[in-house]
Amino acid sequence: MNYRALSAELIGTAMLVAGVVGSGIMGERLAEGNVAIALLANSTATAFLLFGLIHLMGPISGAQFNPVVSLSAAIVGELPWRRLLPFVMAQIVGGVLGTLIAHGMFDHAAFVWSERVRTGPAQWLAEVMATFGLILTILGVSRSRPEAVPLAVALYIGAAYWFTASTSFANPAVTIARTLTDTFSGIRPADAPAFIAAQVVGALLAVGAWRWIAPARSPKAGDSA
Amino acid sequence: MNYRALSAELIGTAMLVAGVVGSGIMGERLAEGNVAIALLANSTATAFLLFGLIHLMGPISGAQFNPVVSLSAAIVGELPWRRLLPFVMAQIVGGVLGTLIAHGMFDHAAFVWSERVRTGPAQWLAEVMATFGLILTILGVSRSRPEAVPLAVALYIGAAYWFTASTSFANPAVTIARTLTDTFSGIRPADAPAFIAAQVVGALLAVGAWRWIAPARSPKAGDSA
Amino acid sequence: MNYRALSAELIGTAMLVAGVVGSGIMGERLAEGNVAIALLANSTATAFLLFGLIHLMGPISGAQFNPVVSLSAAIVGELPWRRLLPFVMAQIVGGVLGTLIAHGMFDHAAFVWSERVRTGPAQWLAEVMATFGLILTILGVSRSRPEAVPLAVALYIGAAYWFTASTSFANPAVTIARTLTDTFSGIRPADAPAFIAAQVVGALLAVGAWRWIAPARSPKAGDSA
Amino acid sequence: MNYRALSAELIGTAMLVAGVVGSGIMGERLAEGNVAIALLANSTATAFLLFGLIHLMGPISGAQFNPVVSLSAAIVGELPWRRLLPFVMAQIVGGVLGTLIAHGMFDHAAFVWSERVRTGPAQWLAEVMATFGLILTILGVSRSRPEAVPLAVALYIGAAYWFTASTSFANPAVTIARTLTDTFSGIRPADAPAFIAAQVVGALLAVGAWRWIAPARSPKAGDSA
Repeated sequence: MNYRALSAELIGTAMLVAGVVGSGIMGERLAEGNVAIALLANSTATAFLLFGLIHLMGPISGAQFNPVVSLSAAIVGELPWRRLLPFVMAQIVGGVLGTLIAHGMFDHAAFVWSERVRTGPAQWLAEVMATFGLILTILGVSRSRPEAVPLAVALYIGAAYWFTASTSFANPAVTIARTLTDTFSGIRPADAPAFIAAQVVGALLAVGAWRWIAPARSPKAGDSA
Repeated sequence: MNYRALSAELIGTAMLVAGVVGSGIMGERLAEGNVAIALLANSTATAFLLFGLIHLMGPISGAQFNPVVSLSAAIVGELPWRRLLPFVMAQIVGGVLGTLIAHGMFDHAAFVWSERVRTGPAQWLAEVMATFGLILTILGVSRSRPEAVPLAVALYIGAAYWFTASTSFANPAVTIARTLTDTFSGIRPADAPAFIAAQVVGALLAVGAWRWIAPARSPKAGDSA
Repeated sequence: MNYRALSAELIGTAMLVAGVVGSGIMGERLAEGNVAIALLANSTATAFLLFGLIHLMGPISGAQFNPVVSLSAAIVGELPWRRLLPFVMAQIVGGVLGTLIAHGMFDHAAFVWSERVRTGPAQWLAEVMATFGLILTILGVSRSRPEAVPLAVALYIGAAYWFTASTSFANPAVTIARTLTDTFSGIRPADAPAFIAAQVVGALLAVGAWRWIAPARSPKAGDSA
Repeated sequence: MNYRALSAELIGTAMLVAGVVGSGIMGERLAEGNVAIALLANSTATAFLLFGLIHLMGPISGAQFNPVVSLSAAIVGELPWRRLLPFVMAQIVGGVLGTLIAHGMFDHAAFVWSERVRTGPAQWLAEVMATFGLILTILGVSRSRPEAVPLAVALYIGAAYWFTASTSFANPAVTIARTLTDTFSGIRPADAPAFIAAQVVGALLAVGAWRWIAPARSPKAGDSA
């Protein structure tokens, strides 16, 4: 039933990006130059939306919506490696579709390359940290209390908008989708590769840190969540 | 015990609309022209209120408060078709009562037709998407983790205020009730039919998408939530 | 172990009022005339605080912190009538202590009668509605899903600040405590009695409505939450 | 497996402080002088981040991230006294690391002593109260409903930013870390010792109050959470 999982990743990522880009446009439009209020709307809307999306698609595809989440899942053995590429493709296509939907809802042209500059070592460090925290949260809470993952991830992203200088993209598919919108949440295409590289680094660091702090449990242990 | 379910739908929808319209009036009054802050208050108050209302009325009537939620429930077999019309009537009457209560609490005239224009293809697409996401969330989370439905729906609505250009009505009964208030949350009566049509389209698309992604489980399967 | 329950009600109500009055002072001080932002801070802080307080004191005293909640509990048989008066006294003393603590933390005089006018039929209707919704939420969610009561009550209060014209006092002990502070959250002593009367009316209406919608279950029924 | 618990405390406290300091910088930068909005961002981000961090590290180290939480745990017998000092050291080192990370992400110098004055009896009382409420919440909810502790602590801190005049440091390790940043969330080194003393007082009061309200249960009792 692979096509269902791929549909779930595609639709989920599309809704996530429509939420990120759409609430960015709305926030910017209403806040009239008050960037803090626009970001408050953007971050709250993203967090609130993610909670339902993860619950919705969790049992079907794992609700990853994010290539570095899928990569981490493959490394720790929760996603077969052969499914990684199809998942990533579905997430990227879904993300682009999400930008298209947001632009349709707000009467913008289908796609416009972003001119928003997001670059430099501080931004890259921010993306490393944002992704490190995201992947660590997913790995850790999945083990300690799986039913709390949707809320933990949602609130983490809502927080990371604010405590990282880059407003926490932390997702290569979303990063690509956000190159296609010249609005509040956009990123210049030339700046995307370094963001994506930083996200991969952050994810790998999180997997390593997690293995150090909480080594894989022996299958003999009688576990109860 | 049908009259109890109808009372629950009526009272719940009245409280929901009183919350939507009331917090819109309060937000607009206090924010003094800062529409973003008014919408932040409006969206947060609606989301917070919905959580308790859904828990409150869930065991009695399903806490639908929304004709297209009831329609979707009828299609997927969770509401008998013969109960659809009474539910919708109770929701509409409750919604109108909610506007009345909000106006009473804020010392407005009982009803004033709204003059707020909300029309055009972008707004209609926004209503299709808003309702699509709402119904998909309800269908999906009801199956994957029923006890998370109240929070998922509440937060989804809180988010959809921001990422849809229409601020996400997504509810025909609430749409009708909002034609009767010439305040922040109002909608011109002439614009309501297209909104309602878009909501029905979004709901039908969600039911179709859900059936594609997650076909009905065989009744033989031994399920545990 | 009655003295423990009374201590729990006193300390809990003190912390609640310290939270309401304190966040009101902080919000007003920082927002520099932007009342909407002050109220956003005030309402969010109150809601967030309530969640923990209700969990904290729930097993000890029921975490009522509110004379009309105790009254409703007595009517539906969950609080012995002979304990009602001591509970109410503890709540009132706790509330006054809370104002004192808030004033201490913000370097105000111990008590100053509020000069803030809150009166008129619209405000009274708002208090009736606010209390009606609060009591209905408590009664209903206590039966349908008791473990969700703390979040439901917390979010309801956070919402009711916004959708009621009175910013939802909904609590006689808190109303009395708020006559003693001439800050953002204060109420003129002369206006308190009508607020309290409206709160009692709202509570009684809620008990009546709940009995109509959801009649008491027979003790024979094999219940599982 | 002590080194894992220490790593968990160190990483968790680092992420917490990076979140507190980082969201303070971002809030101040974007809000352009509107301190209320900056604090709203700061408090919301901290609360949202804490929820995931506590779930993440809870099963490994108890997710204390706070010397007075560890002290209270030692007093009530949940942390062996010999582990208290190592825990506190890990928390302090983690906190300092967190400031370093936040400064890196926002392109600030590594460390700059804060010049922000936070002193006087009202501030000290605020820290006593903030810590009292935090420790009481942890002790009480840990017994009444352990799985609600992460959300209760997160929301309590989010609230306490607003209802205490000091914006609720309530944590000696975080207080030390915040002397090293001359930004929104900083505190002058000279003012830190009194804050820390007040936090210890608040914690001890909470332990005492809790023992009065809810005496230790006999180990013979057959408990089920």
